[in-house]
Amino acid sequence: MSICDSTNIDFEKLAAQVFDRCEVIAQCSDEAGKITRLFCSPAMANAHKQIRLWMEGCGLHCQMDSLCNLLGSTTTDDDRPRLLIGSHIDTVPNGGRYDGMLGILLGIGVVEALQSSLDQLPFALSVVAFSEEEGVRYRSPYIGSKAMVGCLDSELLDRVDDQGIRLRDAVKDFGGSVEHLAAARLREGSVIAFLEPHIEQGPVLEAENLAVGIVTGIAGQTRLTARFVGKAGHAGTVPMSMRRDALAAAAMWIQEVERIGQAREGLMATVGHVQVSPNVPNVIPGEVAVRLDARHAIDSVRIAAAKELQLRGESIASERGLELHWERCEEQNAVPTDSDLNALLKQTMEELGLPNKQMVSGAGHDAVYMSRVAPTTMLFVRCRGGISHHPDESVTQADIAVTLRTMVGFIERLSMSYSHK
Amino acid sequence: MSICDSTNIDFEKLAAQVFDRCEVIAQCSDEAGKITRLFCSPAMANAHKQIRLWMEGCGLHCQMDSLCNLLGSTTTDDDRPRLLIGSHIDTVPNGGRYDGMLGILLGIGVVEALQSSLDQLPFALSVVAFSEEEGVRYRSPYIGSKAMVGCLDSELLDRVDDQGIRLRDAVKDFGGSVEHLAAARLREGSVIAFLEPHIEQGPVLEAENLAVGIVTGIAGQTRLTARFVGKAGHAGTVPMSMRRDALAAAAMWIQEVERIGQAREGLMATVGHVQVSPNVPNVIPGEVAVRLDARHAIDSVRIAAAKELQLRGESIASERGLELHWERCEEQNAVPTDSDLNALLKQTMEELGLPNKQMVSGAGHDAVYMSRVAPTTMLFVRCRGGISHHPDESVTQADIAVTLRTMVGFIERLSMSYSHK
Repeated sequence: MSICDSTNIDFEKLAAQVFDRCEVIAQCSDEAGKITRLFCSPAMANAHKQIRLWMEGCGLHCQMDSLCNLLGSTTTDDDRPRLLIGSHIDTVPNGGRYDGMLGILLGIGVVEALQSSLDQLPFALSVVAFSEEEGVRYRSPYIGSKAMVGCLDSELLDRVDDQGIRLRDAVKDFGGSVEHLAAARLREGSVIAFLEPHIEQGPVLEAENLAVGIVTGIAGQTRLTARFVGKAGHAGTVPMSMRRDALAAAAMWIQEVERIGQAREGLMATVGHVQVSPNVPNVIPGEVAVRLDARHAIDSVRIAAAKELQLRGESIASERGLELHWERCEEQNAVPTDSDLNALLKQTMEELGLPNKQMVSGAGHDAVYMSRVAPTTMLFVRCRGGISHHPDESVTQADIAVTLRTMVGFIERLSMSYSHK
Repeated sequence: MSICDSTNIDFEKLAAQVFDRCEVIAQCSDEAGKITRLFCSPAMANAHKQIRLWMEGCGLHCQMDSLCNLLGSTTTDDDRPRLLIGSHIDTVPNGGRYDGMLGILLGIGVVEALQSSLDQLPFALSVVAFSEEEGVRYRSPYIGSKAMVGCLDSELLDRVDDQGIRLRDAVKDFGGSVEHLAAARLREGSVIAFLEPHIEQGPVLEAENLAVGIVTGIAGQTRLTARFVGKAGHAGTVPMSMRRDALAAAAMWIQEVERIGQAREGLMATVGHVQVSPNVPNVIPGEVAVRLDARHAIDSVRIAAAKELQLRGESIASERGLELHWERCEEQNAVPTDSDLNALLKQTMEELGLPNKQMVSGAGHDAVYMSRVAPTTMLFVRCRGGISHHPDESVTQADIAVTLRTMVGFIERLSMSYSHK
């Protein structure tokens, strides 16, 4: 029945190869002894060189687009429909081996797995290494995928990094060209699906003892800063009854953030950043700014929670005679992944005898932008302790094998459903 | 009846002079456009020069001791018993006109007020300008008064300031000598009383519409740091139920600090300093250190409150699966001022038709150390908004006049009671 015969594929061997390659690419770093790979840096050039070798080794045709995304395809025919697989090549400073890179190497691994049946597929396979996702060098994330979907803000092109180098010059030195930005844009309808495998960056799969999860959407996010303004004073001379302590008010609100976060299924509500002024042990804090980060798969739930927290903040401040200013409010709506692709992934996992965990991504990914031009989904891979953005990122070879098996099964089923269209 | 006839004293005129002199000394600064007068600095030398002129102008004999405290006395006879009045000459960086300096100039003002009757007093009057109280230059407070009571830690003599200058060298360059440290020590029994007038540094007198208050004691203080250790994690990927958020725990404890502070009469309990790690908006805080400052006039009340807060901290941490470490615990017991002197101040104010507010100082003062060698008390002077350590420190001429009147009345009554002993 099957277009490609996956029974003969040695997933264990391929998984070992992906695992080892993650280790090899970890050596491509801009900082000795750390894993730091920034946009258009020497480390990224080394990584490109290595990835090209592996891509070409399994017959992929390589090219770098004008914004330095590296693509390896089973075809040179730009009009041929393709399934795109991949993730980003860059890391945060002192990051880990798997965030981003695993998705690229799994893409190559799948091409190797399907080596003998690539010709029978009704679509081409392409593997992408997005040039920039973390937003470190130019303080703006998703540069690679934004360029591919044609929504990169041109204001960004003249932004400078910490060394004063403009983005346009960094791209040029790397062999790209912002003058040909439009050429990076994917051809309308050319991508039948985009699949981004990525480490979970959270503890859920580990806690449920699962290797892989289907990402049904990327949570929406509200970020806002509450600045409580009271009155600074001497900690030894201002009686409790005469105080307008900004920290006591902020602490009460931080409690509310946690309470409301816990009260609503699937909501994540966090205060991660606090700025106390003057932050001196014997001075009653006069001003405290706290930043809320709230996420949920359903926008209306998140928006209602943020609204409730704003109201609670207002009443805490007014009961205490404080001012409260809301600053830097940013909203990003949830992005559901493609339900047809998810159904196919679910079916694949059921038929392979794997549990099919459906989950929401709380973190943003290139998939958010790719979903604007193609049916898109993601697979999450279990990572030890939920750790990411850290040298301790850890993924097992066994989980890589399960992921490869799922991806190959998914491509088989996608081929069939595509052929029947 | 009275030894000195205060009916002819023009307190308004003397108050205007004290007020103007505060302005003159404010010009003696180590930073242009600010009031910054550090220990043994050029600004302190200028202030000494000016204060000597005023002291000598009203017949005081001036001398600087080996640790650079400046003394002006109505007598050169070291054996003659004396009433000592004064405060400190130094300021914090970018401080105010009155903290410290007002007490010195009120001392000189009183000598001028009593000019015609100094000979009839049964004791000498001395005015002191302590060389160092704020602890800025050598990160250690009360250096001047500690030297005068013989408890300056000799380890301090070799401590260096930010420029690498040792304390002993700074003192030597200023004309003092740590080799003769013992000579700075006050002669046993030579001081019949020490009176330190000082701005309140708090809002109580202003709130109660009073010019002056009698300080019945200096509060004891507990300082300790609670370090909550949880687990950092991604704010978008770790479900609320799996978190060990150190900030949520710390916020709960900050609430308890306020609650317990409010529940006990006279207790001041403050968290002024918070350190969040990593303090990044999208990361659940893994570690939060908060510093408690608790003060009360009665040691047992303060100690019980600190104990209760430690227990609350422990249970918050254990309910949430966090570690809690207590660090930097410092205890300083309360120092009551002399009850006989306070009774005399109360009587004075009653007889002058002034309200006699009794209050506790939440801040430390040179009076703490002086109380080890002589009956000691303090008068607090109302300051606008309770502001101190800031260019906005403000005191009215009218309140200075009330303070001078109170001090002169106190000296009259002290003379009589001393004569009758």
